[in-house]
Amino acid sequence: MNNFTYTIPTKIHFGKNRLGKLAELKESGTKVLLVYGGGSIKKSGLYDAAVSVLKENGLEITELSGVEPNPRIESVRKGVSLCKENSIDMVLAIGGGSTIDCAKIVAAGAKYDGDPWDLVLRGSLIKEALPIYSVLTLSATGSEMDCFAVISDLEKNEKWGTGAEALKPKMSIMDPQYTYTVSKKQTSAGTADIMSHTFENYFTNVKGAGLQGHMCEAVLKTCIKYAPIALENPEDYDARANLMWCGSLAINGLLSYGAEVTWCVHPMEHELSAFYDITHGEGLAILTPVWMQYVIEKDPSKIPQIAEYGRNIWDIRQEDDKKAAEEAVRKTADFFFETLNIPSTLREVGITEKNHFEVMAEKAAKGCAGSFMTLEKEDIIEIFNRAF
Amino acid sequence: MNNFTYTIPTKIHFGKNRLGKLAELKESGTKVLLVYGGGSIKKSGLYDAAVSVLKENGLEITELSGVEPNPRIESVRKGVSLCKENSIDMVLAIGGGSTIDCAKIVAAGAKYDGDPWDLVLRGSLIKEALPIYSVLTLSATGSEMDCFAVISDLEKNEKWGTGAEALKPKMSIMDPQYTYTVSKKQTSAGTADIMSHTFENYFTNVKGAGLQGHMCEAVLKTCIKYAPIALENPEDYDARANLMWCGSLAINGLLSYGAEVTWCVHPMEHELSAFYDITHGEGLAILTPVWMQYVIEKDPSKIPQIAEYGRNIWDIRQEDDKKAAEEAVRKTADFFFETLNIPSTLREVGITEKNHFEVMAEKAAKGCAGSFMTLEKEDIIEIFNRAF
Repeated sequence: MNNFTYTIPTKIHFGKNRLGKLAELKESGTKVLLVYGGGSIKKSGLYDAAVSVLKENGLEITELSGVEPNPRIESVRKGVSLCKENSIDMVLAIGGGSTIDCAKIVAAGAKYDGDPWDLVLRGSLIKEALPIYSVLTLSATGSEMDCFAVISDLEKNEKWGTGAEALKPKMSIMDPQYTYTVSKKQTSAGTADIMSHTFENYFTNVKGAGLQGHMCEAVLKTCIKYAPIALENPEDYDARANLMWCGSLAINGLLSYGAEVTWCVHPMEHELSAFYDITHGEGLAILTPVWMQYVIEKDPSKIPQIAEYGRNIWDIRQEDDKKAAEEAVRKTADFFFETLNIPSTLREVGITEKNHFEVMAEKAAKGCAGSFMTLEKEDIIEIFNRAF
Repeated sequence: MNNFTYTIPTKIHFGKNRLGKLAELKESGTKVLLVYGGGSIKKSGLYDAAVSVLKENGLEITELSGVEPNPRIESVRKGVSLCKENSIDMVLAIGGGSTIDCAKIVAAGAKYDGDPWDLVLRGSLIKEALPIYSVLTLSATGSEMDCFAVISDLEKNEKWGTGAEALKPKMSIMDPQYTYTVSKKQTSAGTADIMSHTFENYFTNVKGAGLQGHMCEAVLKTCIKYAPIALENPEDYDARANLMWCGSLAINGLLSYGAEVTWCVHPMEHELSAFYDITHGEGLAILTPVWMQYVIEKDPSKIPQIAEYGRNIWDIRQEDDKKAAEEAVRKTADFFFETLNIPSTLREVGITEKNHFEVMAEKAAKGCAGSFMTLEKEDIIEIFNRAF
C-alpha cells in the first residue's frame, strides 16, 4: 500500500428534502453565484425552491445559466467575469457534474488573474477558490465531493481534467429524489461513468491495497444491483440513493488513497468527447470492455487481476485465469450493452469516420502514461478501431 | 436508506515515516498536552522522535502519561487540570485507542466547567474541545478518526461510550510500522474489535443500504485476509497497513451513514470490561458468535441477513438460510478462536463467577435498546451464560 494523505472535507447532506440546508451558505458571505444548466431545474421546481431558501436567508443571487454538458471554457469565462464584477462570495451549482465542474473553475478563476483555461491545463496553478456548494441532480461524475473538474474548449477540440484541494466543495446536498426524472439514457451513462471511475482505481499496480480493492468491489456490486432497478422504476428511492452515493464514493479519494494509479480509459474517452461531443458515460462504456480485452491480449501479467474481478464481481467459477478474465470482459459488456442498453460501438453514438483517431490517440497517450498497462499511441488507435 | 449528514474532517497522514507531519500542530497554537500510556513509546523510540519534531517546531510540551487500557476518569481529570493550569492549546495522543479516547475527553473537559464524567454520561454536553491530534500505534478502536471515546470509572464499575462532532481529531498520523511490535494477543484482540464495529453496522434493520453493506463486507474480508498474515509475520507492512486502515474506516461513519443502528454487542462487552477489566476485543470476540446464534434462535426474521453474511464473507454455498446462517456463526467462531487464537469463553479470560451478570445485563439492556434484535435483560443474561 502506498503512503497517502486523506482529506475529504466536504460536508454532505444526503437524503430526502434536505434543501433547507442551503441556509449554511450564509457561513460564506452574502453574494452567491448560482450556476445551472439548460433549465431542467426550472421545470422540476428545484430552481424556485432553492431560490426561495436562498432569499429567506438573505443571500443575493447572481446567475450563470446555460452551462453545457461537457462544459465549455466560454461559460467558465463568463462566470469568472460575473464573480469579479459582482464581488461574489461563493458559488452554488445546481445540476449534474458538468454544472458543478463549471462552477468549480469559475470559483478558482475568480481568485486568479489570468485566463481560467490556464487552470484547466495546470491544476497546480489553483491555489485558492471561492467556497463551492452544490445541489446534485445526476448520479455520475462525483464532482459534488471531489477535487476534479473537466472543461472543454471545443474550438480547439480540447477536453482536460484538472484538480486541486481548493476545488473540493464545502457542502453538497444530495437528494436522490432529484434524480427521479433522469432519463434512462442518462441513468445508464451515469452508471457507466461511476463504474469506470471505480475500474480506473481498481486496476492498479500498487501491491497490497487490499481494502481499497474490496471497496471498489462494493461500489461495483452496488451499481450492478441498483442500476437495473432504477431503469425499471425511475422512482425507486433506494436504487437512486445507492447510485447517488456510489457516484460520490467512487471518486472522492476513498478508493484511490494508497492505491494511486494513472487513469487510462478516461483520457481516451475525453478525446472522443472533445472531438465528437458524445455522452461521456457512453464513451466510457464502449471503451471499457475493449480496453480490458486488449490488456488481456497484450500483457498477460495483468490477467490474474482481471480474473479476480470476474470471480469477485460476476461470481465466475472458472479456474483458468485467462478464461475467467475473458468471461469477465463478456459479463462487463453484457451489463453495459444489454442490461443498461448503452450503444456498444462508436458508430452507434455518431462517430462515422476515423479521421481524428491518430491525433486523438497521441493526446490520450500523454494522459495515460503510467497507467495499469501503459498504452502507446498505437495501442490507443487499435482500441479506438476495435470500438468503432 | 436513511437520511444522513456526512462529515469526516480528520486529515490522515498514512504510511511510512510521516512523523514530520507533527509540524502541522503549529496551526493550533504553541502549547501541547502530550498524552500517552505505559511507556512502550519510550522503549520503541517513538516518544523521542515525536518530542524532537515538536521541539523543532517550537511547541511547548506538558505531559500526561500512564493512561490505562480501558482508560479511567481519574486520568482524564488529571489531564483536564493540566490543560487548565497550563493554558494548553491542543492535545496530542500517542498510543492506541485508550490513549486517544482519554485525550479526547481531556480536550473536551478543558472547555467544560464541570466534572468531565458528565461528558462521558452525556455526549450532548460536549459543545467544543481543544484541537485533538493523534499518532496511532495500535489498530483497533478507530478513535484516530471518529467522534467517540470510551471511559471507565472502575470504582463504580461503569464504562460508557460518549460521542460528539468536536471529538473528531483534527489530524492523525498512521504509520503501520508502529504496530510491528504489537503482540499477537493485542493484534488478535484489535482485529476482533474492528470486525465487531463492522458487524454492529452491518446487521442493521435499515432497508436499502446496499452500498453500506457491501463496504462492511470489504472491511470484514480485509481483516480476515490480513490478520493471519500479521500474526504470522508481525512486520508484514501491507498486512499491518490494511488492518490499520480497516480500523479507521470501520467506525468513522463511512459504514453507518444512512444505515444507522443501535449497537448491541459493544454495550454487553462494556459491562464485562467495567466489572472485570478484561481486554475489550477479547470480550467482543467471545460474545459475537454467541449473540449471532442467539439471534438465529430467537428471531427467525433475521436469519436471511446472517445467511447473506455467510455467503458473501465465508463463501457458504448452502441454499437453506438457517443452515447457512448457522454455518456462518461457526465460521466466525473458528476465525476468532482458532485462526486468531482468542480465548473462546469468559472463564478463560478470568471471569470465574456470575455474581454481577444480572446488574450488568440490566445496564447493557439500556445501551442496546433498538438494536438489530432488541435484547431484554433476560436475553443478555442468557448470552453471558452461554459465553461463560
